[in-house]
Amino acid sequence: FPCTILISRTLRNQLIIPSWLEFTQMIETIFDSCRESNEGEVASYIPQLARQSPHTWGMSICTIDGQRFSLGDSKKNFCLQSVSKAFNYAIVASEIGSHVLHQYVGHEPSGRLFNEICLDSNNMPHNPLINAGAIVVTSMIKPTHSMADRFDFMLKKYRKLAGGGHVGFDNATFLSERDTADRNYALSYYMKEYRCFPDESQVYEKGLREELDLYFQLCSLETNCDTAAVMAATLANGGICPLSTEKCLGSRPCRDILSLMYSCGMYDYSGKFAFQVGLPAKSGVSGIMIVVIPNVMGIALYSPPLDKTGNSCRGVAFCRQLIDKFNFHNYDSLLHPDDSRKIDP
Amino acid sequence: FPCTILISRTLRNQLIIPSWLEFTQMIETIFDSCRESNEGEVASYIPQLARQSPHTWGMSICTIDGQRFSLGDSKKNFCLQSVSKAFNYAIVASEIGSHVLHQYVGHEPSGRLFNEICLDSNNMPHNPLINAGAIVVTSMIKPTHSMADRFDFMLKKYRKLAGGGHVGFDNATFLSERDTADRNYALSYYMKEYRCFPDESQVYEKGLREELDLYFQLCSLETNCDTAAVMAATLANGGICPLSTEKCLGSRPCRDILSLMYSCGMYDYSGKFAFQVGLPAKSGVSGIMIVVIPNVMGIALYSPPLDKTGNSCRGVAFCRQLIDKFNFHNYDSLLHPDDSRKIDP
Amino acid sequence: FPCTILISRTLRNQLIIPSWLEFTQMIETIFDSCRESNEGEVASYIPQLARQSPHTWGMSICTIDGQRFSLGDSKKNFCLQSVSKAFNYAIVASEIGSHVLHQYVGHEPSGRLFNEICLDSNNMPHNPLINAGAIVVTSMIKPTHSMADRFDFMLKKYRKLAGGGHVGFDNATFLSERDTADRNYALSYYMKEYRCFPDESQVYEKGLREELDLYFQLCSLETNCDTAAVMAATLANGGICPLSTEKCLGSRPCRDILSLMYSCGMYDYSGKFAFQVGLPAKSGVSGIMIVVIPNVMGIALYSPPLDKTGNSCRGVAFCRQLIDKFNFHNYDSLLHPDDSRKIDP
Amino acid sequence: FPCTILISRTLRNQLIIPSWLEFTQMIETIFDSCRESNEGEVASYIPQLARQSPHTWGMSICTIDGQRFSLGDSKKNFCLQSVSKAFNYAIVASEIGSHVLHQYVGHEPSGRLFNEICLDSNNMPHNPLINAGAIVVTSMIKPTHSMADRFDFMLKKYRKLAGGGHVGFDNATFLSERDTADRNYALSYYMKEYRCFPDESQVYEKGLREELDLYFQLCSLETNCDTAAVMAATLANGGICPLSTEKCLGSRPCRDILSLMYSCGMYDYSGKFAFQVGLPAKSGVSGIMIVVIPNVMGIALYSPPLDKTGNSCRGVAFCRQLIDKFNFHNYDSLLHPDDSRKIDP
Repeated sequence: FPCTILISRTLRNQLIIPSWLEFTQMIETIFDSCRESNEGEVASYIPQLARQSPHTWGMSICTIDGQRFSLGDSKKNFCLQSVSKAFNYAIVASEIGSHVLHQYVGHEPSGRLFNEICLDSNNMPHNPLINAGAIVVTSMIKPTHSMADRFDFMLKKYRKLAGGGHVGFDNATFLSERDTADRNYALSYYMKEYRCFPDESQVYEKGLREELDLYFQLCSLETNCDTAAVMAATLANGGICPLSTEKCLGSRPCRDILSLMYSCGMYDYSGKFAFQVGLPAKSGVSGIMIVVIPNVMGIALYSPPLDKTGNSCRGVAFCRQLIDKFNFHNYDSLLHPDDSRKIDP
Repeated sequence: FPCTILISRTLRNQLIIPSWLEFTQMIETIFDSCRESNEGEVASYIPQLARQSPHTWGMSICTIDGQRFSLGDSKKNFCLQSVSKAFNYAIVASEIGSHVLHQYVGHEPSGRLFNEICLDSNNMPHNPLINAGAIVVTSMIKPTHSMADRFDFMLKKYRKLAGGGHVGFDNATFLSERDTADRNYALSYYMKEYRCFPDESQVYEKGLREELDLYFQLCSLETNCDTAAVMAATLANGGICPLSTEKCLGSRPCRDILSLMYSCGMYDYSGKFAFQVGLPAKSGVSGIMIVVIPNVMGIALYSPPLDKTGNSCRGVAFCRQLIDKFNFHNYDSLLHPDDSRKIDP
Repeated sequence: FPCTILISRTLRNQLIIPSWLEFTQMIETIFDSCRESNEGEVASYIPQLARQSPHTWGMSICTIDGQRFSLGDSKKNFCLQSVSKAFNYAIVASEIGSHVLHQYVGHEPSGRLFNEICLDSNNMPHNPLINAGAIVVTSMIKPTHSMADRFDFMLKKYRKLAGGGHVGFDNATFLSERDTADRNYALSYYMKEYRCFPDESQVYEKGLREELDLYFQLCSLETNCDTAAVMAATLANGGICPLSTEKCLGSRPCRDILSLMYSCGMYDYSGKFAFQVGLPAKSGVSGIMIVVIPNVMGIALYSPPLDKTGNSCRGVAFCRQLIDKFNFHNYDSLLHPDDSRKIDP
Repeated sequence: FPCTILISRTLRNQLIIPSWLEFTQMIETIFDSCRESNEGEVASYIPQLARQSPHTWGMSICTIDGQRFSLGDSKKNFCLQSVSKAFNYAIVASEIGSHVLHQYVGHEPSGRLFNEICLDSNNMPHNPLINAGAIVVTSMIKPTHSMADRFDFMLKKYRKLAGGGHVGFDNATFLSERDTADRNYALSYYMKEYRCFPDESQVYEKGLREELDLYFQLCSLETNCDTAAVMAATLANGGICPLSTEKCLGSRPCRDILSLMYSCGMYDYSGKFAFQVGLPAKSGVSGIMIVVIPNVMGIALYSPPLDKTGNSCRGVAFCRQLIDKFNFHNYDSLLHPDDSRKIDP
């Protein structure tokens, strides 16, 4: 039983974060200081997003040992939006192999806006975390199955990753997204012309409508910080859910999605975020943001006001303070830090 | 004495690579298998590069404890070429602060060719590892000093990083580089027009000639794998040279240059290299390549035949095999690898 | 009766081409020499185009006086394809005013491929002769009417321009075009997102399908060289059909479409064609090409094999020889030609 | 004697503008109405331009018969600046042949800013009227001669075109231009790298400095409206100066430069100007603008305040009114104008 393992490890003081109490107290200080921010605007292109309160602020942590810690509105539901792109990739790559998937999608930042209509020099979308790439990844989900079965397959996978936490579906968001999808239709017709989709994709026979429906449905999956942190921790843990200890994803697809989240996960802020924070992360327009500290923990942050690049203002502020306090940056020197106050928790 | 420390650590079995013999044997196997490659072309735009033998193949490792291991032509001299961009950045950022430096240079991949004439949306070069950015960084080296003093300052710094290893100067390469510098002049005049250089730079008063001379001189610094591995290990070790244990660079500039090498260090292959190998690296047109395993070791690889993106063919092949054998990828899962044969040395 | 006018002018020797016999003999020589060409490929993206014979070669001339001359397959039917863009513009601009039309479409070459997905700095299509601009122009055709009435309105206008010549509809071409329309759908969704269509357009309420149907239907209008030459002559004559002497188009819209045909009428060959031939022209993928000698005559050329830029090989060759023989280039010196053999017919 | 010819033609009423008095009165009305404009800014990047009075406003007309008419500050001197690009092209093309010249320069609008660093798909500058193209054209001026002889050759040619009018040299402007030439140096080094200059050019042996000096010297040629109108009339007249009746330029190069001025002569306003005014024109940053009515006349306009695209505000306003009054637009319908008030002078 995972629970037993956790107790056993605790007794032997072998947890990944040994001084948990001290750690969570520092997290709480950071969390509180971010609450005061008034920056950013709640997304308004569909009413379901516009109605979110700008004051909402939740956070949840789940370590690879299964230790958990939550603050604020950590049980408030939201839609995954673009965060689904990361999990869709990891699920599909685990199913069909990274190698097959990347015959249709690249793995580099595009140097362009996230929804710009352009392909790389191989006529593929630049990476699976921009809209074009995510739509192609969606088309690889069980392409011979019925739409209902395809959605069902993914929902079950998400629930596995979440170790039993809440993963629902927000139909109103789905319907609104579908109605404001001009750019995604433009992108998709453009890719259809260039035959960017796999040959077996239903796109060529049945048209784009159903594929885009599935894409929007996965954007409209609903969860909360408590659950999203577990899902992020599964990525941190090589694909094994820390709560269920079940193998949900391949280890290589986890490594790959972390590479991609590091370089492309935060829209047009990705390069700066990688430089300053140095952690794989993915944000969504609902104000959700997941952050992965590889081999240590997953973090979920939720606050609707977004900065100009579309990332949660409080979420980004939290990450920057986190990296000021702890040596979590990819390239922090562990033995010889300049700032000796920086903590290795 | 560092030597004493190394012995003491060895006795207590606290070295960063505990089973050194086994590790070096595996490295040797990889090294030998790469020797057979016949791919790539030796750079030919200046005679000094064209004359390099395509059979040359050397490698050297230096851990942060100061353990060393070399194979092949590890004592053969070469010019640092673009690898100097990484050290120039780390030296200048340690002198004037990352924050000041980045008022003039960005920190993101450009999504363009490494020598394309373009600036980012702030009218700055995209990052310090493309030519434009490296030229601006050069202009920040002691701008009020004489050219001789500026070069001398840098040479001393390089020798410190190298812990006493050979760092020389190849004048013939310098003179040839200067003669084939049309693109760099074009870039520099373009940046001068946009006032991309700091106000105190000599560029505005004295013109571009001397600044570009200094830039080419630093490209023409000469070293070998044995020494370059020590320099890379200094970056791996937060700026402290593992041989001399002297603090040569700030810890933050080391972290920053590793971030930049990770995302932009391998020319137009950077994105793919980050995805596949997941380690900070920087290559030069002479066939040199340094790779950093943060908090563990520095590696120098030297073989002149280059692939189409300008990276050493044998160097890249070595890295790919390295990451197949060992869990050195940034995002390898340490607890739950798919491939249980992968080694944590 | 126009016929009477023609006779009367002839008797008074006031025709625009006084020595008609000599002129037509020279035209015949040019026509024959172009027949031998074996260059180019018949368009093959839809079967209706692929089935056209590469040997077909027809030509027809109609002067503003109504003098006519035809050679070869001048009665063979073809679809107007992109040539319809020119007439659609002239008809719509005559209906609603150039000024209103150009609130939604620019009037400059784009410097890009004709079907590239991009808008100008005002977020408008660059001009009415690229696909994006032509689709927006189509949306301005009687936007409040039913689809049947809109098509009918245009068909009647085309028949007026043609002075009673054959203008039919090729339904098979329409259906095929609609089935290979990915790029046009991509362009249209992109423009819909940017609200490039007028507010009263049916695009926002009813979607893009019907608008694009109308666009493809106008591309599928069927005519032959004899008739197309009359339509071109109407443009040459300030909007008055030389056969019927009926005012069909405003004089200003005629001037404007000639400007646009001059700079943008020959796809990516437009700049070179303007420089070399110096006449307004518009080509279509069926192999049709109309050329206008302002205030003098309209010419229609039809031969299916296309060069790489999508223009009829024989059509372009004919124009280049025409301009070698006659001083029809926009900027030919009338008084002081270098080549005194050049004829002012 | 040309003078005799003019008198003889006048007596026979065979002048190109029969009712001269009426015509000049209407021109005067237009001229006066433009004087009131307060728009635009005098160029200020060098002091010699900044010192020009914003109130200066001059105009001069010269017909191909040699009839002349001037208003306002028509004798005030200014530098030709970019207007020299048009004459340089016509002179060089007459010397070496259009065909040879266009092996190194294209003939199409670039769709980019006039000084952007880019080449066309053949690695040539897009056309001879953007800076890059003009610099390449300059390098073809008597490449084997000394700099003094090359300048002298051009000065003599300019004076011939001018039929004896004043063509001087403003050394202060030359020296200032040279000092603010970063972009032109950037462009030139870029083109040198791509070997855009002819092999025999001195650029490869002696460097760029002298070539750019010649380019700036030709920009610094000094003249006034009276003389510039004669030079423009020479272009209108197939290369024969209407005052001296001397053949100065080939007829084909005249046709070609008119084509280029039509499509590329007014910087980034070229497309709109062609559409609205429909006449070949070239402007310079001093506020000069020449306009050619082919086979009829040349017009010079001079007023320093420039609009955002770098064209003289009063100059452009004059042209727009001119085309409202007279049927000079390239594509005006001569027989069937909408606006019957439009005059055929």
